[in-house]
Amino acid sequence: MYSAKKHWKTKLHDIIYEADTPAGKLFDVVLLIVILASILLVMLESVKSIDNKYHTFLDISEWVITIMFSLEYIARIITVKKPFKYIFSFYGIIDLLSTIPKYISLIFGGVHALAALRALRLLRVFRILKLARFLGASNNLVRALKASRAKISVFLFAVIIVAIILGTIMYLVEGEENGFSNIPKSVYWCIVTLTTVGFGDIAPQTPLGQFIASMVMILGYGIIAVPTGIVSAEYTNQNKPNKVEEPKLHLNSQSCANCLADKHPDNAKFCHKCGHPLH
Amino acid sequence: MYSAKKHWKTKLHDIIYEADTPAGKLFDVVLLIVILASILLVMLESVKSIDNKYHTFLDISEWVITIMFSLEYIARIITVKKPFKYIFSFYGIIDLLSTIPKYISLIFGGVHALAALRALRLLRVFRILKLARFLGASNNLVRALKASRAKISVFLFAVIIVAIILGTIMYLVEGEENGFSNIPKSVYWCIVTLTTVGFGDIAPQTPLGQFIASMVMILGYGIIAVPTGIVSAEYTNQNKPNKVEEPKLHLNSQSCANCLADKHPDNAKFCHKCGHPLH
Amino acid sequence: MYSAKKHWKTKLHDIIYEADTPAGKLFDVVLLIVILASILLVMLESVKSIDNKYHTFLDISEWVITIMFSLEYIARIITVKKPFKYIFSFYGIIDLLSTIPKYISLIFGGVHALAALRALRLLRVFRILKLARFLGASNNLVRALKASRAKISVFLFAVIIVAIILGTIMYLVEGEENGFSNIPKSVYWCIVTLTTVGFGDIAPQTPLGQFIASMVMILGYGIIAVPTGIVSAEYTNQNKPNKVEEPKLHLNSQSCANCLADKHPDNAKFCHKCGHPLH
Amino acid sequence: MYSAKKHWKTKLHDIIYEADTPAGKLFDVVLLIVILASILLVMLESVKSIDNKYHTFLDISEWVITIMFSLEYIARIITVKKPFKYIFSFYGIIDLLSTIPKYISLIFGGVHALAALRALRLLRVFRILKLARFLGASNNLVRALKASRAKISVFLFAVIIVAIILGTIMYLVEGEENGFSNIPKSVYWCIVTLTTVGFGDIAPQTPLGQFIASMVMILGYGIIAVPTGIVSAEYTNQNKPNKVEEPKLHLNSQSCANCLADKHPDNAKFCHKCGHPLH
Repeated sequence: MYSAKKHWKTKLHDIIYEADTPAGKLFDVVLLIVILASILLVMLESVKSIDNKYHTFLDISEWVITIMFSLEYIARIITVKKPFKYIFSFYGIIDLLSTIPKYISLIFGGVHALAALRALRLLRVFRILKLARFLGASNNLVRALKASRAKISVFLFAVIIVAIILGTIMYLVEGEENGFSNIPKSVYWCIVTLTTVGFGDIAPQTPLGQFIASMVMILGYGIIAVPTGIVSAEYTNQNKPNKVEEPKLHLNSQSCANCLADKHPDNAKFCHKCGHPLH
Repeated sequence: MYSAKKHWKTKLHDIIYEADTPAGKLFDVVLLIVILASILLVMLESVKSIDNKYHTFLDISEWVITIMFSLEYIARIITVKKPFKYIFSFYGIIDLLSTIPKYISLIFGGVHALAALRALRLLRVFRILKLARFLGASNNLVRALKASRAKISVFLFAVIIVAIILGTIMYLVEGEENGFSNIPKSVYWCIVTLTTVGFGDIAPQTPLGQFIASMVMILGYGIIAVPTGIVSAEYTNQNKPNKVEEPKLHLNSQSCANCLADKHPDNAKFCHKCGHPLH
Repeated sequence: MYSAKKHWKTKLHDIIYEADTPAGKLFDVVLLIVILASILLVMLESVKSIDNKYHTFLDISEWVITIMFSLEYIARIITVKKPFKYIFSFYGIIDLLSTIPKYISLIFGGVHALAALRALRLLRVFRILKLARFLGASNNLVRALKASRAKISVFLFAVIIVAIILGTIMYLVEGEENGFSNIPKSVYWCIVTLTTVGFGDIAPQTPLGQFIASMVMILGYGIIAVPTGIVSAEYTNQNKPNKVEEPKLHLNSQSCANCLADKHPDNAKFCHKCGHPLH
Repeated sequence: MYSAKKHWKTKLHDIIYEADTPAGKLFDVVLLIVILASILLVMLESVKSIDNKYHTFLDISEWVITIMFSLEYIARIITVKKPFKYIFSFYGIIDLLSTIPKYISLIFGGVHALAALRALRLLRVFRILKLARFLGASNNLVRALKASRAKISVFLFAVIIVAIILGTIMYLVEGEENGFSNIPKSVYWCIVTLTTVGFGDIAPQTPLGQFIASMVMILGYGIIAVPTGIVSAEYTNQNKPNKVEEPKLHLNSQSCANCLADKHPDNAKFCHKCGHPLH
């Protein structure tokens, strides 16, 4: 039997942490819009000409959004049974870090680096998207990437070793006078070239350097085939129909009010982790 | 029973809207050449040195083409039963927008931006190609792309989020003095780098910035495998012979004179949408 | 029964046109080395500092090689039954064009553009490689490319249309003052960006231009998956073991002395095209 | 029967050359850390500002590492039965070259180029990784790359021929005044463009040059599909379950004390190459 106050908390918990009810869905959509708006604000603020013109408007908007995030943060703490677990969880820290900069700027004046912390708000998008199962379409993709993780690591490790060796050679061949002023910069150039990015802020000037650079480019052009081949093959495997299907559970977006555990089956009555009843 | 006038209209309709008769094919080929010639005109006109030399010739050619397009536009309106449906259809608007600029320039003088509207004429090419079934070879390709649309969207969405977060970090690390003058520009740089384009108009100067840039490049080099893997796998699936074939209808290029509906089977006698007889 | 002279010609024909005898193989290897050496000569001659230093040496080497090619050209004409067919064949013209520039320079002095014609000698490499069956390893590859030719054409055609439309838009957005001085240049920039080359000689400066450029890059990054997917799928198909194998004939490198036809089976006694006896 | 001294040597041999015992594993991990630390040293030393500040610290660290490598080198020579075989093996030469520069700098003063020889130490990483079987994950990958080696060679050869021919054409079209100052540089530009690197240090300026460059880029963009397709197909083949599996031997990381041969089965008692007993 729940008290009236508890009932109110439970309702709020459902709205904030779940996406199955109309109110929960609305909350998620509003939160998504506010997050995207706040990212836009951070971006516009960094553009001098816009900040000069609309400073007051941007400042007020930022305060409105900060207060909204503060209220959300407090509501999340109140409605969860174990607030400290939430506060020190990944999203709890993100929520705090993305809310606090504006308050600090009140005390210390506008601290540049702190203001950009607000861009972390973007990470919250992933929470909402997860809840709303928008990512369902990419399950196979994520599985293919996980399956090929080890191979891609080996590949990237090999690329870095090649970049260090070739970078050192280019440093010796081209030298300081042509922009390869030290080995780390030379390795940086090598990565720029191997990945076919090619900024051109540093470019070989000597014939031998250009010859080695040509080899590096053709190598980079050839080995791009490797990660592509790996992912292609894994992905084709994931799609094969004769594979034994892992039985699909119908999970919902509920998370436990007590311990924040999620991924409960649709018909679950109690939390699979702490046994707390689910509403 | 059709009146003589009706018969004349019907004939014209067949020539303009269908590609199965010799006259219809000839019309399409001529139209294709005129469109390509007009695109060439728009291009050459924008080159100052050419425009100065051959201004009169280009101007006359443009008038000839504009009048041809005007006649075609009028003919299309006359021969269709429901002209307003055509006028407000996608191709109807394209046809109008790509014909009108020259007339407007008579009244207001050469308006620069309007003149470039004529490049929209290129979109008409798709109509002709569709009618002539030139795209038949790419059916599988289009189907594979459609099937992987959802996954590619998720992928692009993830790329954009990564670009925004990394762009903000680079803005903090490099700062205004190295060309990362605001967050949107920094995000732009990040997209330039992730996609391995690498213009080099903005390039990191600090060691930390170059280190992060290296990570971004290797990331971009690695994740290019993802869309490739998706399309490869889908395309391989499309090609499998043991797949249940969707029964192929033999469609022709006829479109209904009454409602513009197309994709009628070869032996169709009446429009599948409005029941109007087809000729 | 052949006369002594005929016999001598036949022997020479075998050496020049076939690669199955030791003498024929030696001839091909020597020719390959001479061709590569002559390409190196053309390259070195174009480097001012080297040409100034070693002008006499390069000039003499060029004369030696020119005379060798002249002798080879004459030998090819003599030993073939239908010389005119050879002279006007693709390789016949290449042979002439790559031999003649040095003689012309005697009469008219060193004509710059003509000298570079000698780079065409590189095309001869393909003839030798074909004869020597070095390309055997790439049969599947060539077949896969041929099978996907139509689809790749459609793809490239779509890329060009997209480049023209986006190029025109960028011309309107950025304008002359930012380097997009006319539509063809703008389309050129668009191709540079879509293919992820990104020279950076022209780069968008306005925020809107950079936004559109970002879209172009992400588009280019995504659609690179398309040709890769096509070739991957075709190539995987080519490799399938359950495919009905086309019966392999054991062809040799002999070509008919009468009509130059090649691809004769190993045990062929007469030319499959003109009935002339093969030796 | 082994003498005490021999036993001590054998123990050391096991630690240095094998990775199956705890001591051997520890040795490998320590060696890995020292190698990476020494590479970091080489890099930092090349950065002027860091070298000026911490010269003494870097110098002492370098001496510590040089002495450690010297001891390791001596230990390797002592514990191997045929020291000369080791000394003139690939890794023996690498070990010497990466140890000696610091000693030479004592005699001749800091020779720039020699110092960079130390970057060769990185190659040692491969030895440790091989011993420790870290590369196990990439077996399929390496096999796929080996299987497609011939095809990739043909592909790269074709790319180089295309680059030479197109480079010569660009040299003629653009000429010295636009940065294409000689054919080798022009070929270098062509490789930069074909591989979609695009530094932009050299870029075509004439309309015709830009048109040809566009063709080169689209070509490069299209043919990147080829190596990707090859590796994808090979890799998919490697993964197929219905393929007859080559029987897997359980190899260990032991190498023979007598002849350095490795890849012995787990239960091997004698070297498969020289018959020497394995411990």
